[in-house]
Amino acid sequence: MLGARCLLRALRSCSSAPCPRPKPSPKLSVREALRAQNTNGERVKVQGWIRSVRSQKEVLFLHINDGSSLESLQVVADSNFDSRELAFGSSVEVHGQLVKSPAKRQNVELKAEKIEVVGSCDPKDFPFKYKERPPLEYLRQFPHLRCRSNALGSILRVRSEATAAIHSFFKDSGFVHIHTPVITSNDCEGAGELFQVEPSSKMKVPEENFFNVPAFLTVSGQLHLEVMSGISYTEAVEILKQASQSFTFTPEWGGDLQTEHEKYLVKHCGNIPVFVINYPLALKPFYMRDNEDGPQHTVAAVDLLVPGVGELFGGSLREERYHFLEQRLASSGLTEAYQWYLDLRRFGSVPHGGFGMGFERYLQCILGIDNIKDVIPFPRFTHSCLL
Amino acid sequence: MLGARCLLRALRSCSSAPCPRPKPSPKLSVREALRAQNTNGERVKVQGWIRSVRSQKEVLFLHINDGSSLESLQVVADSNFDSRELAFGSSVEVHGQLVKSPAKRQNVELKAEKIEVVGSCDPKDFPFKYKERPPLEYLRQFPHLRCRSNALGSILRVRSEATAAIHSFFKDSGFVHIHTPVITSNDCEGAGELFQVEPSSKMKVPEENFFNVPAFLTVSGQLHLEVMSGISYTEAVEILKQASQSFTFTPEWGGDLQTEHEKYLVKHCGNIPVFVINYPLALKPFYMRDNEDGPQHTVAAVDLLVPGVGELFGGSLREERYHFLEQRLASSGLTEAYQWYLDLRRFGSVPHGGFGMGFERYLQCILGIDNIKDVIPFPRFTHSCLL
Repeated sequence: MLGARCLLRALRSCSSAPCPRPKPSPKLSVREALRAQNTNGERVKVQGWIRSVRSQKEVLFLHINDGSSLESLQVVADSNFDSRELAFGSSVEVHGQLVKSPAKRQNVELKAEKIEVVGSCDPKDFPFKYKERPPLEYLRQFPHLRCRSNALGSILRVRSEATAAIHSFFKDSGFVHIHTPVITSNDCEGAGELFQVEPSSKMKVPEENFFNVPAFLTVSGQLHLEVMSGISYTEAVEILKQASQSFTFTPEWGGDLQTEHEKYLVKHCGNIPVFVINYPLALKPFYMRDNEDGPQHTVAAVDLLVPGVGELFGGSLREERYHFLEQRLASSGLTEAYQWYLDLRRFGSVPHGGFGMGFERYLQCILGIDNIKDVIPFPRFTHSCLL
Repeated sequence: MLGARCLLRALRSCSSAPCPRPKPSPKLSVREALRAQNTNGERVKVQGWIRSVRSQKEVLFLHINDGSSLESLQVVADSNFDSRELAFGSSVEVHGQLVKSPAKRQNVELKAEKIEVVGSCDPKDFPFKYKERPPLEYLRQFPHLRCRSNALGSILRVRSEATAAIHSFFKDSGFVHIHTPVITSNDCEGAGELFQVEPSSKMKVPEENFFNVPAFLTVSGQLHLEVMSGISYTEAVEILKQASQSFTFTPEWGGDLQTEHEKYLVKHCGNIPVFVINYPLALKPFYMRDNEDGPQHTVAAVDLLVPGVGELFGGSLREERYHFLEQRLASSGLTEAYQWYLDLRRFGSVPHGGFGMGFERYLQCILGIDNIKDVIPFPRFTHSCLL
C-alpha cells in the first residue's frame, strides 16, 4: 500500500520531489466535496463507507460518508457497475466528476467513473442495518462500531468542537493550561472511593515500593491547580466509582474573586435557576472557605444544578488563611499529607477560588442525551471495561 | 472576601446590576500592564508576588509578577512606604497610576499610591532567595513552589502554548479530537509493564468484580482511535513504568497514506536526520503492517529519533487485512482479547496508519531541557508521587 521506496527517498532527501506517478485526482473529504464551489466537472477522489445503495433501471445511487460530516455524499453511477459488493457498510474509493446535483436535497453529487471496494462488509453479520436507526441502547452494545452511526458520529463531532471551544475560551481569557496528574497520593474529595494504582504483577519491581506511598487515580485536579501562581485551568480526567471516567474543566484563579465569580455565573449560566449556596461547612471538604458574609457555619460556595443531569458546575473560594486551614487539617488528621498545600499559605498566600464543570454533563445538557455513556467515546463503569 | 449577599442577589436576579460600591480601578494582569498603550496616568490595580525590593533614599522599587509573563512589572513608590513586609515572595495588591517609565529596560511602570500586602512570606523559610537563580535540580525538590521561578513559569507557559498549537493544527486539518480511555483492558504495547487499577480497599464493592476483567492504565490511545471512522486524534495520557506520566498526541487516519505520511514527515521533520525504518516484523507489535515494498519481514513503520531525547515520533501503517491480522493474533494467543479490533477489519476495513508524538520529548527538544521531570508540571516516577 505504502510505497516504501518512495517514502524512503522522500525521507532521505527531505525534499518534496514528487514520485514518478501520474498526477492523481485531488482527494476530498465528504465534507469538502459537499462544500465544493467548483462543480464544473472537476475530477476528484472521495473515500468513505456506503450508507445506502439504490439501484434503478438506468442509474445507481450510493450515499457515502467518511465521518467528516453528518451529511453523506451522493454518488451517481451507471447501472452497468457491478453492484454486488456495494453493500451497506463497505468502504469504497470513488473517482469521478463533481457536478451540480439536479436533486433538491443536495447541491453537489459525484458522477462516478470508477468505484473500488476497499473493504467489503457482509450485511448479514454487520450489526447495523440499512435504513434502520437503532436506539442508543442498542448501539452501546457495539462500542467499536457505534461511531459509524449518525447519532454517535454527531455526538463525537460536537464533543470535539466543544472541547476546542472551551480551550479557546480559557486561552483567550489569559488562562494557562496545566496538565494535572492522573496519579496522585492525595485523596481530595474521594472520601476513600478511589481506584488504587499498583504495578501489575508482571513488573519486576516489588509492588509495595513503586511510588513509596499508596497512589490513586485522581478525582480532581483542583488542589494541584492551586500550586500554579496565576490563572490556570486543567482538563482533568476524573475517575470516580460512579461516573467512572469523565473530564472536568477546572479553572483556578487568584485575585478579584467577587467580580469574577459573579461575572462567570451571570454570564454563563443565564437563567437556569437552580443555584445552591450556603452549604453547611461541616458537609464540605476542608479546603473550602467559610462564608464571611453569609450565614454562620456555611461555605463560600455555589453549585449549579441542572434538571436531569445534577451538578453541572461546582465552585468555591478556597481557604487562603494559614491558621484556619491548619486547624481544619489538624482536626481531620491530614496535616502531614497536606503540608505542601499548607505551604502555599505560608509563602505569599492569595485569596482564590475556582469551579469545576462536568464536561459530560454539559454535553448531555446541550444535546439532550439521557445516558452519560452515550457522550463518552469509551465509557467505563461497574462490570464494564470494554476495548 | 466574597460579598455573598451581593453574589446571591446577582444569582437571583441573573442581571448584571452593579453592586452599590465605588467604581473600582480596572484590574490588570502584569502582562496587560506591560503592554498597556494608555500610560497617561490611568489608575489601575495590579496583583502579584514580589520578585525584588530595592530601597533607595527617596524611592522604593518593587518588581511584581503574577505568572502571566516572564517580565515583571516595576512598581515605584515613595520611600515613606512601610517596606518591612514587602519581602521577596510576598503577594501584594498595588493601586496606582500606569506611567511611561524613564528607564530603558521597560516601557511602563506603576506609580504606587497604595500597596497592600495580601499574603506575607518569611524570606528565611522560603526556599527560593532573592536574586538567586537556582538550578532545575534544586527547584525539583519543591514541586509545589517551583512554578514561581522564572524557569518553571516559562516552561509551563510554553507547554500551554504548544498544547494549544497542536490542537489547532489538528483541528484545522480536519481531525476530530477523541478522548481515549485512561483505563483499558487491553495491553497494547506494554508487554506486561503496566499499572493495574483496582478499587481501593475502602470501597464496598468486592475488588475482584469491579470491571469484571483486569484493568490497566493505558499506555496508548492508538488502538482505540482506530475505532473512529475518519480522521481523528487524541491527546492520550501514557503511563509507563519509566517515564511515568506523559502525554502523546496520536492521530490516526485512513485513506491516502503514502502522500499523508510523506507530507507529514517531510514537512514537519525538516532536516533532522535520524529516521529509522525497516524494523524487523518480529520485533514489532501485532498491529503493524508488513512492508510490501521494502525488505521482506520488515514493517511499514518509521520512527524519528532525536539526539538527546530518543524517539520523538513513531509511526506505522496498521494491518488492515482481516486474514493477516487474524493469523498474527492467533499466533500470539490474543484472538479473544482483540476480537473487537479484528471486527474493524470485517466490516468495511480501510488502509490506515498514524503516529504518536511524545509531547514531553518535544518540549525537551525545543527548550533544550535535559530532564523530562522539568517539563512536566507534576512528574511521577519510581519512588515518587509528590502532591
